[in-house]
Amino acid sequence: MERNIRLDITYIGSAYCGWQSQRNGTTVQETLAAAIGKLTGAYPKLHGCGRTDSGVHAKNYVCSFTTPSKASPETFVRGLNALLPRDIAVKAAAEAEPDFHARFSVTGKRYEYYILNSPVRDPFWEGRALHYPYPLDEGLLDEAAKAFLGERDFSAFCSAGGSVKDKVRTVTEASVRRDGDLVVFSVAGNGFLYNMVRIMVGTLLEIAQGKIAPGALPGIIASGDRNAAGATAKPQGLYLSEVYYD
Amino acid sequence: MERNIRLDITYIGSAYCGWQSQRNGTTVQETLAAAIGKLTGAYPKLHGCGRTDSGVHAKNYVCSFTTPSKASPETFVRGLNALLPRDIAVKAAAEAEPDFHARFSVTGKRYEYYILNSPVRDPFWEGRALHYPYPLDEGLLDEAAKAFLGERDFSAFCSAGGSVKDKVRTVTEASVRRDGDLVVFSVAGNGFLYNMVRIMVGTLLEIAQGKIAPGALPGIIASGDRNAAGATAKPQGLYLSEVYYD
Repeated sequence: MERNIRLDITYIGSAYCGWQSQRNGTTVQETLAAAIGKLTGAYPKLHGCGRTDSGVHAKNYVCSFTTPSKASPETFVRGLNALLPRDIAVKAAAEAEPDFHARFSVTGKRYEYYILNSPVRDPFWEGRALHYPYPLDEGLLDEAAKAFLGERDFSAFCSAGGSVKDKVRTVTEASVRRDGDLVVFSVAGNGFLYNMVRIMVGTLLEIAQGKIAPGALPGIIASGDRNAAGATAKPQGLYLSEVYYD
Repeated sequence: MERNIRLDITYIGSAYCGWQSQRNGTTVQETLAAAIGKLTGAYPKLHGCGRTDSGVHAKNYVCSFTTPSKASPETFVRGLNALLPRDIAVKAAAEAEPDFHARFSVTGKRYEYYILNSPVRDPFWEGRALHYPYPLDEGLLDEAAKAFLGERDFSAFCSAGGSVKDKVRTVTEASVRRDGDLVVFSVAGNGFLYNMVRIMVGTLLEIAQGKIAPGALPGIIASGDRNAAGATAKPQGLYLSEVYYD
């Protein structure tokens, strides 16, 4: 009988066209599937916990596949880490219940968006944070971000191109904190629309710039109008941080 | 009259053969000098605060040069950051006293060495820390490291190839601390010999492995014998953190 294997991985997205395999450009999915194929002798159908955009990173990403391989979880971790490029690593492997599916079993996710708020750029954050050299009041943004909390139709925070019809999502956490020069937007919820977190960040940055009033967020959400929200923030600051399962 | 300009810079050393210009391979010095040349129209004689090995990083590095340019410090910062590759940045520029010299005026330096102590590798620390997957008792190493403190002949902690005769240096700080999976060796002193910090780290790691007794360090220092100390730890974990001037 085939075993159902869950992998917890992490990757720097800079060199990849996101998770999902596609016609043009290398993806994390095909890179990992190729390594699994080499290790087990059978190229797997690899289910990811969701798509990530080109250039977006993952501190934690979960995927699953079935395999005839009898390799131990430790062998998967060691073998795959030896085969994978240095910007992708397997943190843990485990035999999952037969009905576990990395995408369909997800109950929630947490994202973080890193903003480097310093007068000059920092090589150590290059490609890993958005550089924002102007003053940023994280207290103001933290307060504004509370408008995202709860069950809402997030149509105003969804880019065109997504195939999802139901745009109601529940956000359980939305905060902005500062750690030195790094300002971090953290948001958790039961699901996220196409570019949703990046549009949230772009909107918060327009609040910081005074282009949008701090109290305007509830109205923007209620409008359901993508044009009422801010620009889509660049991908390099975005990290998938946690994936939740029951 | 020529002005004396001090630059405080930071760089990721992975792509460079250290600071100092040499026959083969790109260096930070020549990369920065070329940018200054472009900005001011005159290729400068650029004095650095010291050499750094190939692959070693700098959170803070200080250099100085004289120039006929009338550009403001802000222009140096902005102009050079626009011209430099993304792995080097100028943090600050200032007009210095005529007798300030980035190398001869140094009174001390602080280095940090990052060890990623986790069972599997982490893409986000790739090339930026030494991956050490075995147990590491940072308390034991912190205690052992105190043997480095004081004015000592550090011949046992100097690689062959250096031209310096006097190997007496004063170490004012030597500690090992843990921050999650990251174990950091921090050492400050009035000067450092060729590979000195990397040999200190290699020796501490052999203490962690039980190859060298924790109490053996004073004897190793006293021996003056390079072969009594541990291996030279890899460059990618080493950061020049602070450069001190009076």
